[in-house]
Amino acid sequence: MSSNITHVAVLGATGQTGSVIVNALLDSKSPEFKVTSLTRPSSLQKPAVIELAKRGVGIVAADLNGPAEELEKGLAGVDVVISTIYGGNLMDEIPLMDASKSVGVKRYLPCFFATVAPPKGGLRLRDMKEDVLNYAKKLNLPYTVIDVGWWYQVTLPRLPSGRIDYAVMETMDGIAGEGNIPFAITDVRDVGKYVTRIIVDPRTLNRMVLAYNEVKTHSQLYDLLEGLSGERMERKFVPIEAIRSSISEIEATKPSADSAEFVTLCQYQYWYSCCVRGDNTPTYAKYLGYLTTKELYPDAEWISLESYAQEVLDGKAKRVYEHLEHLTPARADTK
Amino acid sequence: MSSNITHVAVLGATGQTGSVIVNALLDSKSPEFKVTSLTRPSSLQKPAVIELAKRGVGIVAADLNGPAEELEKGLAGVDVVISTIYGGNLMDEIPLMDASKSVGVKRYLPCFFATVAPPKGGLRLRDMKEDVLNYAKKLNLPYTVIDVGWWYQVTLPRLPSGRIDYAVMETMDGIAGEGNIPFAITDVRDVGKYVTRIIVDPRTLNRMVLAYNEVKTHSQLYDLLEGLSGERMERKFVPIEAIRSSISEIEATKPSADSAEFVTLCQYQYWYSCCVRGDNTPTYAKYLGYLTTKELYPDAEWISLESYAQEVLDGKAKRVYEHLEHLTPARADTK
Repeated sequence: MSSNITHVAVLGATGQTGSVIVNALLDSKSPEFKVTSLTRPSSLQKPAVIELAKRGVGIVAADLNGPAEELEKGLAGVDVVISTIYGGNLMDEIPLMDASKSVGVKRYLPCFFATVAPPKGGLRLRDMKEDVLNYAKKLNLPYTVIDVGWWYQVTLPRLPSGRIDYAVMETMDGIAGEGNIPFAITDVRDVGKYVTRIIVDPRTLNRMVLAYNEVKTHSQLYDLLEGLSGERMERKFVPIEAIRSSISEIEATKPSADSAEFVTLCQYQYWYSCCVRGDNTPTYAKYLGYLTTKELYPDAEWISLESYAQEVLDGKAKRVYEHLEHLTPARADTK
Repeated sequence: MSSNITHVAVLGATGQTGSVIVNALLDSKSPEFKVTSLTRPSSLQKPAVIELAKRGVGIVAADLNGPAEELEKGLAGVDVVISTIYGGNLMDEIPLMDASKSVGVKRYLPCFFATVAPPKGGLRLRDMKEDVLNYAKKLNLPYTVIDVGWWYQVTLPRLPSGRIDYAVMETMDGIAGEGNIPFAITDVRDVGKYVTRIIVDPRTLNRMVLAYNEVKTHSQLYDLLEGLSGERMERKFVPIEAIRSSISEIEATKPSADSAEFVTLCQYQYWYSCCVRGDNTPTYAKYLGYLTTKELYPDAEWISLESYAQEVLDGKAKRVYEHLEHLTPARADTK
């Protein structure tokens, strides 16, 4: 393999974030990537996996709970490992990190790819991600954390006419507090492009990076969509105390990480963190030690919120998480 | 107060690390500092506190478990808070951080001042310090972490003749493994000077800093001391497995943070982290995101290990932790 080609192994390559990343890796000509999907043995024959193989992705069976030597064999020659594992299974990354360390992977990306949040005590999901990161640090494993803010695709509110329901999937039902807290948002389709730059950038080694497109408040989102659609939208303001109570109620039940209640808890906590505490901003990210794509790649092209909203109104957008369609809007996404 | 004078409040001002810092703050002419000691109400009449007052240190009664308003009042006008609290009581810093956030303290230094270690899973004491740091991050409290490596004063081995026993206080009895793992060491007297520079340096805001003098292996320490003293020293190599076993045995008893067993556990874990894992190095520190004083202040003057060792041999050195003299060498220091 030419030294100009970076070999990237992706865990979760058929998931929402993983597939966006794989697409960008395959599309990228400079830098160029060889892509491997670390696939559960039981999923090797799934149509989505066969489709990946057709597109030139190497398929490697990887049983995270299997023998270490097998995992290490699957990582032979891999430069970068990217985990986009399901949030409830984060701890399964531990053996993958051990194997990555053993074979000398040059950079490991644990599954973050969400909003900026305090390392502990804000989001239970983030608490777990931080445990994974701390394990990497104990291993002295070269790493990069990428967070991407909130996605356009799960942030844009619905319209009274229902005409954009086909595409949008707002995870919060209403506006927290007065809707004046700014948060970072990104078109999910841009995540892959950011990743292709970040993973070959020496400046981002052993650092956290916030990749984001825009910073908006909830009120600004409504204003934008009202302006573009010509529809008048009801603004349902949810008192902060009500969100706190919902979090406390679910927390009191100590939901396990693979339960539906955990997903709901995550959504309330994301909502509180982003829209009440105001954690999901470039300013707080920099305080926490993140680099940002705005500073790293001022030349990067990205899809504006306005053009995404127009695309949605034009009937040309796609819904994310199609496989999670059965979930209610209030609990469709744990990233 | 002139804007050129930085007002620093120190918690633990009469302790080993705290007193070194207070001395350096008082000695410094440029930058200039106003120093306040945050003192337990029950300690206000202690001779060491009265001595501080005589030297120009403001004494403020601070009950960490008392009313928030009282703590806040004590922090009025304070720019920088430095905690050098006893390791077993780290969580008492929480109300001090809350109060520091409330009154707008510009920089908070949680009690680190020890060796470089992974954030979690290496040292129980570090795990706790990381919890404190994470709390600061959740508060969005401006902070600086300073670690200082291992002190000369607790690293230099004893001589067979006993002639340096008056001064040295080796915390580990023997050499871990083969004695060839490098670790960062610092003369405790230099810690204060580093602190006076770090706390007014905008580059160190919201960062971790490793302040250190030299990097040596255990074998190099023995070589140096044999060369200077002319004595031949027995080298007692302790198998790594024996250290691991000692740690496991104590961990199994789940010692509380205020117990003697906890102090012993900390010492074994420090030993293992520094001399087996090799965590306490500038290289690992940089991986973890630390800045180092070598890079920040290439002009800084510091006491060499050799000159400290000569001072000890000349009978001119002072023992640290005089108030802990009753502890055995194997458990005198938790920093």
